[in-house]
Order: sequence, then C-alpha cells, then structure tokens
Amino acid sequence: MSGPAGGTGRWYVGIDIGGTNLVVGLVPEAGGEPLGLRIRATDPGRGPDAVVADVVRMARDAIREVVGPDHRDGILGVGVGSPGPVDRPRGVVVESPNLGWREYPLRDRVQELADWPVVVDNDANCAAFGEWWVGAGAGTQSMVGVVLGTGIGAGIILRGELVHGASDAAGEFGHTTVDLTGRRCACGNYGCIEAYCSGPNIAARAREGLEAGIPSQLHDLVGGDLDRLTAETVYEAVVSGDRYASEVMTETARILGTGIASVINFLNPEAVVIMGGVTRAGPVLFDPLRTEVRRRAFKVAADACRVLPGALPETAGVVGAAGLCRATLRAEG
Amino acid sequence: MSGPAGGTGRWYVGIDIGGTNLVVGLVPEAGGEPLGLRIRATDPGRGPDAVVADVVRMARDAIREVVGPDHRDGILGVGVGSPGPVDRPRGVVVESPNLGWREYPLRDRVQELADWPVVVDNDANCAAFGEWWVGAGAGTQSMVGVVLGTGIGAGIILRGELVHGASDAAGEFGHTTVDLTGRRCACGNYGCIEAYCSGPNIAARAREGLEAGIPSQLHDLVGGDLDRLTAETVYEAVVSGDRYASEVMTETARILGTGIASVINFLNPEAVVIMGGVTRAGPVLFDPLRTEVRRRAFKVAADACRVLPGALPETAGVVGAAGLCRATLRAEG
Repeated sequence: MSGPAGGTGRWYVGIDIGGTNLVVGLVPEAGGEPLGLRIRATDPGRGPDAVVADVVRMARDAIREVVGPDHRDGILGVGVGSPGPVDRPRGVVVESPNLGWREYPLRDRVQELADWPVVVDNDANCAAFGEWWVGAGAGTQSMVGVVLGTGIGAGIILRGELVHGASDAAGEFGHTTVDLTGRRCACGNYGCIEAYCSGPNIAARAREGLEAGIPSQLHDLVGGDLDRLTAETVYEAVVSGDRYASEVMTETARILGTGIASVINFLNPEAVVIMGGVTRAGPVLFDPLRTEVRRRAFKVAADACRVLPGALPETAGVVGAAGLCRATLRAEG
Repeated sequence: MSGPAGGTGRWYVGIDIGGTNLVVGLVPEAGGEPLGLRIRATDPGRGPDAVVADVVRMARDAIREVVGPDHRDGILGVGVGSPGPVDRPRGVVVESPNLGWREYPLRDRVQELADWPVVVDNDANCAAFGEWWVGAGAGTQSMVGVVLGTGIGAGIILRGELVHGASDAAGEFGHTTVDLTGRRCACGNYGCIEAYCSGPNIAARAREGLEAGIPSQLHDLVGGDLDRLTAETVYEAVVSGDRYASEVMTETARILGTGIASVINFLNPEAVVIMGGVTRAGPVLFDPLRTEVRRRAFKVAADACRVLPGALPETAGVVGAAGLCRATLRAEG
C-alpha cells in the first residue's frame, strides 16, 4: 500500500490559485510543509477551465510522486484557495477581478480530480490559516494574517478556528478606514488601508511624488517611464539607499501599523502575521511598522501580540487550503 | 422551598457597577430580564468598600424578594461587571479612572455575599453579552456591542462566546484610528473614534465651534457657560431644531459609522448593537450612522449586519454579568 516516498501516511491535497502562480502540494494529516510541491504561472488569460486542468494535473503528479500509484487510501480531501469572495456552501468563486472569474463553479470543476471531498475557500483565509497551523503563528490560539499584494486581505483565527463571518466576507482588513477624507480606494470608499499599502498603491504614491519633481533613483530604475514603476521598484530603490523611496516605504509601514494597532486594540490577538512580496523589505518595513503599533496600541494588548513576517512565503496558501479542508471535514463529522 | 415570587427556578445574581449607577438583579438561568431589580447612585467618592457593601446589600434584598428566605439552592453564581481593565483570573479591577479604583480585589470583596462562585468582567463586555443573550442581538451567532459613554468600549461575541483576547484586553473599539493625524485622544494616540464620539468629546467638539463664533441655541442652554456643555445638551438642542447641534450630531454619527463599517468589513458580524445615553438621540444618530456604514462597508457584509440600538438600556450590564458568570461556570465544567 505504500508509495515511493514511503507514503503510508495520510494527506490533504492543497491547491493555491493565485493571480500570479498556481501552487499545489500534499500536506501531511498532522500538518507540516507540503511534499511533492508544484509551482507554475497562472496565466489567467487562458480562462478558468484551463487553469483548473493545470492544477488537477499538478495534483495527480504530486500524488503519484508522494504516495505512489496506489494512492487512493492516502488522500483525505482537497483544499482549494482562490482569490475573491468565495461562496463556500456552493464552492463557487463569486467574483475575482484578478483572475477575471465570475460565478465560477470551482469546487465542481476540481472534483473531476477524484471523488475526494473538495473544500474551497478565499486565498487570504487559506494563507492566514497556513501560517497559523504550521508557520509563524503556530502555537497561538488567536492570530490575524494580513496578505499584502494587489489587494490587501486578511484571515482571522480565534480559538484555533477561522472566522468566516455571517456571509463569508470576514477579513477585509484592507478596507479599514484610517483617514476619513483620505485617498479614494478601488472599493469606492475613501481612506482605506488598501488605498495606500497595496502594491499598486505603493507604486502610485511613489509616482505622485516623482511627478511633483522629487529627485530619486526611481526615475532611472524605470528608465524615465513612471508607468513602469511597481512596489518592487520602490523596494529596490530602498535597498540601494534612495531617500525618497525610503520615505514612501516608511509611510506605508506607518499606515499599515496604524491599521494593525486598531486590530490589536479590538481583538487582542497573540500574533499578527504579515505576508506577501512587500515583506521581503524586512526591517525597512517592520521597524517603522512595529514602532507605529507601539505608539498607537494599548501596552497590555501590544505586549501580548507579536507582529511577524510569514514563515511560509511560497506555501502558506497550499498548507492553509489543506488545513481548512481538514477543519471543515472534521467539523462536519 | 419556593420563595415569595414562586422562586423554584434557578438564578444568577447580576451586579453592574457603573461610574454613575449601581444596578443589581436576579437573572433566570435560561436568560431573561432581571427580577428584583435595584438601582442606586454609585457615588464613587465613598471608596470601593462602601460601593461593594451597597451592591452586596442590594443583592441580598433582591434574593429575599425573588427567591425568598430559603434562597441558597436557587442561586447558581454571581456575575459582576466593572469599568476599566479587569484581571479576570484574579478577579481584580486593574485600574478604573472613572471610579478611582486601582488593583482593587473586587471578586474577593463581593465574595462576602455568600460562597457562590463570583465572576468579574469588564462592563462593556457585560453590556454586550447581555444584549446578545437577551436583548437586541438575541438569536445571532456574532455580534459587536458598542457602549458610548465617558469612554467608548465594546464587547465582541463570536460563535456565541465573548472574545476576551490574549490578555483580556479585547474590545477597545474606541481606540480604532479613523484619522491618522486627527484629534488627540486621552489614550495618547491621535484620531481615535473615542476622541470624537465619547460624551465628553462630543461636548468638546461642540464647544470648539461655539468658541469660534457659530450661532446656536447651545449658548442659551448652558446660560453662556460653555464649560457646562455636555453631550446631553447637544442632544437637547438637536431635538429643539438647532442647526449647529445637528451638524455636530451628524458628524459624530459619520465618524462612528466609519469605525463600524471597518468592523463590519473585518468581522462580518450579524449585528452591531449600540448602547449608551447617546442612543436616545434615535434617528438623529442612527440615520446618518447607517448611511455611513452603507457608504463604507462592502454590500455583502453590510447586508448581513443589522445596526441597532440596545434593547436593555438599564439592565444590559446586569443580564450580561449574570450571563458571563453562567458561561464561565459552564466552561469550567
């Protein structure tokens, strides 16, 4: 019954469908880093069915590698994370602007992999749950995981369970208002954290200063074409000592820290774990962020809460999708 | 075995120690409005022991009235709500500026009532839990209760349990930043909701406009002495049609609504229940507040959430203190 990698264990398949990459792996029943990991570009322009065909193929390959050809007994279920609001009872991606999907029956499509139970959840929920189960938040009872990317999402874990909310919409930390009359946000609101701290908005804020004539290496890094400016460019300029880019990054950290301080005052969690590409900025981001948290949060709550970068930069989504599948199946008995 | 009021039932004693009033009553085991209700002024200048002697006497009287002289079998426990952070394991009020208490061993002092288990919790937690158990939030699984008063506190109920947080500090909704560079708050931070929407800050904001020369009936209502202005004065002026007072109340509602929208986006609760004297303003407060929530929260989350005034203006604290005692004893088995 055992496979090539000694696969007598039991596994959940974790599938993370991101705007940029697809990541698939097998997560041990008791939790841990995924085995048989597969990563490839999402290329969403192909449409959802081609993307699903890819992840199904990647999952089959991973299963063959890890548990061998006689694999059916070893797999307990399949967890899938997807951007955008997800209707969990129906397993449908309601709308994902990043993927261009709308009302897509993701669970039923993935079901063609096999008749294992398939559980679909939001990608930020999956990433947060992965960090809580196996990563930076392991061992805590309460954690908020914040994912910085094209948008800003979050997953909330309390008493060891993910908080989905009354209509599966919990975790929209990016749409916390930090400035009543602030920047217009894509959501229609003003002064949301996302309007300052998402990747595109970090770039947009940097661009505004450059257009106003502030001198910076950023001009050279994009060859004078400010439309090419991204959050990564800002980070590169910070690393090479650019003063204006550092100011943009510090302001980003302060605004994010303000929102995190509000969350710490409100929920008093044991950890806030921050994920996404921007966290590669390291102390340039985390030092001013933690300073702002200390400045704005109550001491008794700030003392109880670690503010940490994620520990699973590539696999949090896969681990968390598997973990949420496990939690859902166990709750259903 | 039965008492004068047919007291064959079983009861929790609920004690609500407020900055203004002491309220004590007996709450049925299954939940409900308290019986044998006693209310009197706190008069905190007397010191904590005199206050506790009062609530103990009020509790004895309530027990005698409701369950009769042979009362011991009928009482399951005593719940006590107190302002300020409470160290629950030790039953100690850490610090209450409103009462002038510091490191006061409230549980041990109340224990002189009898050898029933005594459970102490924060007053905002008690009020929120009371509204959830018996009041405006009854029947929901998730609710945030916001108490507007001298400060602004909140209690969070998720999956039918109060969220205490990692260091019993959860619920500081009043210290959510809504304006990065806004008004200085008593907590040391800038731009907290409390810096705008607490009773004293509603009055302070109104006073600033009057001092700047804005015409208003408020001048006459306080006989020209702006130091006498309170949130109640503002409310009175709104009722009698004063335009400036209405503007102050509308701005209060908008700022509060902004913070509540952030909470709705983050936790996606079934209800937000707003308590405290200011809620007597009714539609003058709730209409612009709900408009702001709709303007700032995601539709899927706003649609799932009712924003309501409390249903137990006098007794939420007593009911909730009793309910939290019940929940604690049940959790301890």
